[in-house]
Amino acid sequence: MAETVLERRFRLLGPNVPLFYDEPLHIVKGEGVWLYDKAGKKYLDCYNNVPHVGHCHPVVVDAIARQAATLNTHTRYLHDGILEYGERLTATFDASLSSIIMVCTGSEANDIALRMSEAVTGKRGIIVTDHTYHGNTASVAALSSTNKASTSQSHNIRFVPAPDSYRPASRHDGSDFARHVENAIDELEELGIGFAALLLCPYFANEGFPDLPEKWLDPTIKAVKQAGGLIIADEVQPGFGRIGSHMWGHQYQGFTPDIVTLGKPMANGHPVAAVVTTHEIITAFRTSFRYFNTFGGNPVSAAAANAVLDVIQEENLLKNATDVGAYAKDSLLHLAKKHCVIGSVRGRGLFFGAELVHGKHCKTPAADLTHEVVNLMRQNGVLINKLGIYGNTTKIRPPMPFSRENADNFLSVLDHALSILGHEV
Amino acid sequence: MAETVLERRFRLLGPNVPLFYDEPLHIVKGEGVWLYDKAGKKYLDCYNNVPHVGHCHPVVVDAIARQAATLNTHTRYLHDGILEYGERLTATFDASLSSIIMVCTGSEANDIALRMSEAVTGKRGIIVTDHTYHGNTASVAALSSTNKASTSQSHNIRFVPAPDSYRPASRHDGSDFARHVENAIDELEELGIGFAALLLCPYFANEGFPDLPEKWLDPTIKAVKQAGGLIIADEVQPGFGRIGSHMWGHQYQGFTPDIVTLGKPMANGHPVAAVVTTHEIITAFRTSFRYFNTFGGNPVSAAAANAVLDVIQEENLLKNATDVGAYAKDSLLHLAKKHCVIGSVRGRGLFFGAELVHGKHCKTPAADLTHEVVNLMRQNGVLINKLGIYGNTTKIRPPMPFSRENADNFLSVLDHALSILGHEV
Repeated sequence: MAETVLERRFRLLGPNVPLFYDEPLHIVKGEGVWLYDKAGKKYLDCYNNVPHVGHCHPVVVDAIARQAATLNTHTRYLHDGILEYGERLTATFDASLSSIIMVCTGSEANDIALRMSEAVTGKRGIIVTDHTYHGNTASVAALSSTNKASTSQSHNIRFVPAPDSYRPASRHDGSDFARHVENAIDELEELGIGFAALLLCPYFANEGFPDLPEKWLDPTIKAVKQAGGLIIADEVQPGFGRIGSHMWGHQYQGFTPDIVTLGKPMANGHPVAAVVTTHEIITAFRTSFRYFNTFGGNPVSAAAANAVLDVIQEENLLKNATDVGAYAKDSLLHLAKKHCVIGSVRGRGLFFGAELVHGKHCKTPAADLTHEVVNLMRQNGVLINKLGIYGNTTKIRPPMPFSRENADNFLSVLDHALSILGHEV
Repeated sequence: MAETVLERRFRLLGPNVPLFYDEPLHIVKGEGVWLYDKAGKKYLDCYNNVPHVGHCHPVVVDAIARQAATLNTHTRYLHDGILEYGERLTATFDASLSSIIMVCTGSEANDIALRMSEAVTGKRGIIVTDHTYHGNTASVAALSSTNKASTSQSHNIRFVPAPDSYRPASRHDGSDFARHVENAIDELEELGIGFAALLLCPYFANEGFPDLPEKWLDPTIKAVKQAGGLIIADEVQPGFGRIGSHMWGHQYQGFTPDIVTLGKPMANGHPVAAVVTTHEIITAFRTSFRYFNTFGGNPVSAAAANAVLDVIQEENLLKNATDVGAYAKDSLLHLAKKHCVIGSVRGRGLFFGAELVHGKHCKTPAADLTHEVVNLMRQNGVLINKLGIYGNTTKIRPPMPFSRENADNFLSVLDHALSILGHEV
């Protein structure tokens, strides 16, 4: 009997390779906000943030093709591409964040950020939330409490409870979170490990993007600064204008981090990522550690990343994210009146979702139902996924040219799925 | 006064960013074995192994452009690209090496390989040579004794003396190296760290590619196996046919590693790398560690990597490496009769070079002279570099379509440089 694609995949790639949906998709083509499977079926992509300006955007494809045909080498020769990009990118940050290291993956970016905080503070203690993910290198994977990691790799990490605006532990003005961070700092210092940095996604994306008012992080930032530590903002998910109102999540939160890490959407799928920081911190890092990344910042990577910035500007994608995001969130709130499994609607710009619960009073997380909704929507041509502390929040994070019409399409399919599956409440 | 490119680079990228040559090159175009600077000056590229099948090879550029315009997503959907590539790539290895993880950089590949050895052995001790480099993540950078790394990241690493065929410490049949490895294993076991793996480049490229007879590693491999450890072969430099006689360095050395890591030349400059191993080891890794790489093995990366395999076959590049490599090495040996600063000529296929010394008897490494030769050749349109334990070995590692005519060009410029600079002996 002929080997199936799944069997072939298992044979070549091994077990436990992540795959979406109970019935996996075999995608062969992408265009804008659409993906097409092998049978020619069309899917509305409400999930993928990597194709930030839309699948196979011609401006990005053309930039890659032209530069790949001209020159693709490394940064041990001079080249204008990385400098032009560095200039344009850092111009979108606070003036203090003026230096850049280009790498290939968000994991590499966070791996560097950890060493930067060590170079500056001389200490290695890192604080993260207990429901996050920052990448896959040995030192970065250890930052995920859900990832198994050897003890020796994680003795310097402390986890603090992820914020949950829907089920706030007590006060929700940010002082609780700050207190947890302070306790973690004390523990790291008492154990002689010392505190180097707090690393967080300013949108707390994997934590389920809780509703946090502006300045919510202020007491935490104060505590970190007082302890002499750094703030690393992982902007892989909220960055590049996804939240609409601001280019970066930390700008919405109203603080300036010491180090910013970037990844997935930066070059629309071309393997590009970066660390942006102050000249002082990059100097400390490059004095303490020898670092060179062969592919990082090569002419093709710089061209692809430059093209993404071009399209964000030309197509006014921040405005679109604000407009369509607000429209979709309003419609979701409207839908919540019809389907009482929708316990909470949250998000900003083109990163939003609903938390599904069994009973609005007890707020029992409906993770199984969310799983069924995700899979039924996939059968009906709309791709979403789930995340959050309880895995019961729909993850809507489409390519940025997502339109009101696309939002209507998404909402009607969600409405249909909840009508079929959500009646048990 | 207008800011220079170097000043702008320092401002944006920070200090100590590696840059080749006393007078850095500003390269704007590449084609085959040629690079062109901003002024239109042409350079013969005798150094870059990343553009494995030649700078901007049209088959690879076309594969990237076509796939980037069609689909570029991740492996959480099914796609034929990664499976076709996995099938073709693993077919070039021993049948036991049948599984693959595609990532973006050789650093990511080695970072995984270390965790694989931990997953299999339950131990974390790693042995490497004292003059090697395997990548830039925190855990992999610690493997370079020349890289500064914090103690806590390197307590599990033991360095053994790099082999030196030109100045052999005592016996040179491989038993000395094996003895050093055995001692390191004993030390790791005695300290309770335990021995997980020996990681080496089978060509000992950074060590200066010493002349090692086939089977030289046999006693070492026997010692590693007896101790229950794994052998990780870093094929980033010798792999993909560079040594001509074999597709992989370990095949020339006559052993089958447990894990193979690949990088730089794999997709001609597109950020692609991989780990190849047994189904048993990949299963152990994927059972012990959750691992997903967003960009790894995406359709464009797979298309670029597939195109490189196409060109290697179609243009018969292994045969070319054998032929031109032998021709160039013979010519270098001939040149050694004229210039007595050439102490040793070594290498295989299109990775060869000469060790420059002050006096053939005392063999005093001529690192300063080598530096001058590298820079003078750059002035005369030929790009090489240097490596080795003493930094006095010329590094000739050109794109694989390097011809006899290119070799003649290189040799005449080297001859000229040595005539001017090498007379002091």
